[in-house]
Amino acid sequence: MSSLFLRTLREDPADAEVPSHKLLVRAGYVRRVAPGIYDWLPLGLKVLRAVENIVREEMDAMGAQEILLPALLPREPYEQTNRWTEYGPNLFRLKDRKGADYLLGPTHEELFTQLVKSEYSSYKDYPISLYQIQTKYRDEARPRAGILRGREFLMKDSYSFDLDDEGLDRSYQAHRDAYVRIFDRLGIDYVIVSATSGAMGGSASEEFLAVAETGEDTYVRSPGGYAANVEAVTTPAPPPRPIEDLPEAQVHHTPNTPTIESLVDFLNKAGLGRTFTAADTLKNVMLKTREPGEQEWRLLGVGVPGDREVDMKRVEASLAPAEVALLDDADFARHPFLVKGYIGPGALAANGVRYLVDPRIVTGTAWVTGADKVDHHVVDLVAGRDFHPDGTIEAAEVRPGDPAPDGSGPLEAARGIEIGHVFKLGRKYSDAFGLDALGPDAKPIRITMGSYGIGVSRLVAVLAEQNHDEHGLIWPRAVSPFDVHVVIAGKTDEIKQGAERLAAELDESGVKVLLDDRNASPGVKFADAELIGVPTIVVVGRGLANGVVEVKDRRSGERVEVPVVEATAHLRDVIRAG
Amino acid sequence: MSSLFLRTLREDPADAEVPSHKLLVRAGYVRRVAPGIYDWLPLGLKVLRAVENIVREEMDAMGAQEILLPALLPREPYEQTNRWTEYGPNLFRLKDRKGADYLLGPTHEELFTQLVKSEYSSYKDYPISLYQIQTKYRDEARPRAGILRGREFLMKDSYSFDLDDEGLDRSYQAHRDAYVRIFDRLGIDYVIVSATSGAMGGSASEEFLAVAETGEDTYVRSPGGYAANVEAVTTPAPPPRPIEDLPEAQVHHTPNTPTIESLVDFLNKAGLGRTFTAADTLKNVMLKTREPGEQEWRLLGVGVPGDREVDMKRVEASLAPAEVALLDDADFARHPFLVKGYIGPGALAANGVRYLVDPRIVTGTAWVTGADKVDHHVVDLVAGRDFHPDGTIEAAEVRPGDPAPDGSGPLEAARGIEIGHVFKLGRKYSDAFGLDALGPDAKPIRITMGSYGIGVSRLVAVLAEQNHDEHGLIWPRAVSPFDVHVVIAGKTDEIKQGAERLAAELDESGVKVLLDDRNASPGVKFADAELIGVPTIVVVGRGLANGVVEVKDRRSGERVEVPVVEATAHLRDVIRAG
Repeated sequence: MSSLFLRTLREDPADAEVPSHKLLVRAGYVRRVAPGIYDWLPLGLKVLRAVENIVREEMDAMGAQEILLPALLPREPYEQTNRWTEYGPNLFRLKDRKGADYLLGPTHEELFTQLVKSEYSSYKDYPISLYQIQTKYRDEARPRAGILRGREFLMKDSYSFDLDDEGLDRSYQAHRDAYVRIFDRLGIDYVIVSATSGAMGGSASEEFLAVAETGEDTYVRSPGGYAANVEAVTTPAPPPRPIEDLPEAQVHHTPNTPTIESLVDFLNKAGLGRTFTAADTLKNVMLKTREPGEQEWRLLGVGVPGDREVDMKRVEASLAPAEVALLDDADFARHPFLVKGYIGPGALAANGVRYLVDPRIVTGTAWVTGADKVDHHVVDLVAGRDFHPDGTIEAAEVRPGDPAPDGSGPLEAARGIEIGHVFKLGRKYSDAFGLDALGPDAKPIRITMGSYGIGVSRLVAVLAEQNHDEHGLIWPRAVSPFDVHVVIAGKTDEIKQGAERLAAELDESGVKVLLDDRNASPGVKFADAELIGVPTIVVVGRGLANGVVEVKDRRSGERVEVPVVEATAHLRDVIRAG
Repeated sequence: MSSLFLRTLREDPADAEVPSHKLLVRAGYVRRVAPGIYDWLPLGLKVLRAVENIVREEMDAMGAQEILLPALLPREPYEQTNRWTEYGPNLFRLKDRKGADYLLGPTHEELFTQLVKSEYSSYKDYPISLYQIQTKYRDEARPRAGILRGREFLMKDSYSFDLDDEGLDRSYQAHRDAYVRIFDRLGIDYVIVSATSGAMGGSASEEFLAVAETGEDTYVRSPGGYAANVEAVTTPAPPPRPIEDLPEAQVHHTPNTPTIESLVDFLNKAGLGRTFTAADTLKNVMLKTREPGEQEWRLLGVGVPGDREVDMKRVEASLAPAEVALLDDADFARHPFLVKGYIGPGALAANGVRYLVDPRIVTGTAWVTGADKVDHHVVDLVAGRDFHPDGTIEAAEVRPGDPAPDGSGPLEAARGIEIGHVFKLGRKYSDAFGLDALGPDAKPIRITMGSYGIGVSRLVAVLAEQNHDEHGLIWPRAVSPFDVHVVIAGKTDEIKQGAERLAAELDESGVKVLLDDRNASPGVKFADAELIGVPTIVVVGRGLANGVVEVKDRRSGERVEVPVVEATAHLRDVIRAG
């Protein structure tokens, strides 16, 4: 440590909010260069490489082949998939000396697709999975939390290429299994959540989220182990009910009921012989949608139980890749059959507007809803009798206490950090580039793809986030920059030489040792050892006169005295035990 | 090979001129994405990583510490050293979403200097050497030869920080020694040439050039082992001669002598009783120079023997960091004492113009030169008697046959590829950023720096350039993507299973095996094996019936038959022998 390029800090950096950011800076692992752009110092780089190697080993073990693509990429392929535009301000764009457009790669679907197309031609070439561990760039609006959300970061991205959906299923599963092994080896506390596609286009996807209160991603989970992004939660539909004996629908004059609450109040005082709640009302929200590549917007009515808000993120995820927007006043003016505040299924059906409803709105359920006339509502409008939706949609908000779709209990909200993503891309990119294999019958087979990512540099922050206490970091053995941290706690030659001898002995037996040989007080050295977070700390001090050194477990705080002659063997056992 | 992401090509790529480019593309090591921007395919990446690891091992062994800096860098530090501007169109510049200026790092002096300043404060912290192996960007005007001169490339760059010049000397030597070990381990044929500083600023520097006819860099060498950049060659000065008995200088009317040749002819026919050659004339070239940060240009006369051209690259290197330009007509008009074509030392001295001469122009040498008057020259103008230059300058061209400055024989021109550079930066960057250490007497000590680079990805091309024949690549063992290439040369189950058994056996004993198990003809397989260039090829074919396989040395072409039962042991011996 007297020559190591490492200076610890006593104070938290001013811009740091989350523990991993504070500790990685204070313990001398990373240094900020610009917003979201960091230096990796010697200790930080060791942890980064350890994480990278675990990722590489498991990717190799599952049969993916490593290659390395550039970060500086020409515009054309991204133009071809429209991502040059779609990425918006998140993309770093630049021009070369000749004025040609380039970008800094945020992800490499285009390049991998082009590459496979240039090398492979026959169905016999497939399947194949390729990966790289490579520096990526995204011009985040709010880079935050140090290396947790950087603008330059290290990612492992892989892409699978298969002849058919069954092949894609296998490739997807192989990646998913490899990810489980990687995160298990790293000792990360994580959940796998069903996810939706977002901007990537495609059909099926799961996210690996590290459990963290400071996480930016929200998800829901059940006691029985269900976990999903809110966008991916499906609503269990109750069984349909018999229609026969239900009362007829009746239109009521309901003045001064601008809100669901006031409507329910009004009805409960109207002497109908029943008690209504917001859950008995059917709220119809008017949207417009536009399919990719089309010009025209199309009207869409969405019906949800009146006690729930419409969650636009869930709506967007349900309707992707189509665009969605709420109707504005001009839209309403263009369609006078839409009586704002009193829209019912009747006017929608009469005017050919597509109408999708919450899965709870099943045949035989009776609703209070708009009567398509100012100050009027209809009561006992029965699904399957009085109105016939065009289908269902996951549009209603998910609330704590809602049942998990797999019956594993009530949902609760939780926060996490995305560390991995597995994604069935399908044929979006092979369509864009015409990636076909020549089949056995000489007919072309359109290739189907998956894309799979792990945030390698982010994992270092996640590990710090999940492994620390008030004194500093506590690395899992698999990624610790050193195996043992030997502290010289005393100024006598005997102590110094004893510690140096022990460090040399450990080093010879293949143990990675950090020796604190600085001219500093034992207090300073102990504090730095706790801060740096090597899992085993050995104190060589006064006890050496009696032939013993102290071995401290950083995580549990347990200390044992060990005869110095047995110290190397003891420590090797400790390391082997993991 | 049946599942390896590798397709070899029979044809050279259209844009390839040098062998390494042709072969690395044909053998499936790299693929072009854009000018100077390449994909590394599985085989190429293996070689790249092998080179990188050798570089890392030797840098670690010499005590340099590895860190990793970003490629995307803010403008400010480069503004502070003026390199934001000086780099001109070679720098990739871009803006982020907020309009802030960024660049893609071409080299990292600024960032390392800032980093050390932020961490270190006391003289006790020094010396230190830091390095990184990192992706760099330069927008080359003419990216060429595949990965030999790319726009995105992998470099090892290190920086040393010392308290004094003796420390810098030691750090410089340690890097130089490490570079020698690295290039020796890679088996590269190289020379170390004295170099000049170029755009970097500083005082001493050497380049490591791989010997290659296709190289872009020229240098000179002697039979005795001297090697230098042309800019760095110094001219041995003859001893001064006695002045006493030399004839007086005489001005002659020399009409119609616009060239040195016509002047010499004229004089030889003028009946002066002597024979003149071009080497007896003194040619005075008028330049102007401007020191960094200054506005004013200053006149400079440069005198060289008339049989040599002025080499502007050598002039620039001699006068760096000052700017240099030839006088234009307007300059001549402003200084009427400069009689174009007839400029002599007399008018320069009389008008206070600085005058530097070739080292061969020593006291006691007599010259034919301009008489500062149209159509007139002066003969027997003697240095040290009739004119007194302000000093010497390395301005004259270096020619094959010139003596090496160290007396090691006549120089000859040669070509090479720069693979490494060691460079005493001095205090340019520590001055720019105010990098001081607090000395033992509490006074600040300005740190002195060195910078040291190795082109890691370029080395892969250089290795290919120096290790190939007409059939393909021939990798040195230290960097070969595999140790052994096993070819299944036959369609019987016995041959296939025998080859697979041998490959498995080799694999178990730690030998990296490439097994050609494709359904292809032996001819195709042999051609690919030669092209790919693994140093040892094992053919499992008909001989197996007699219990033998063929082991072929790719470089020598030698073949031996080896009993299959002894093959693993034999191959391990071959590999161990290197």
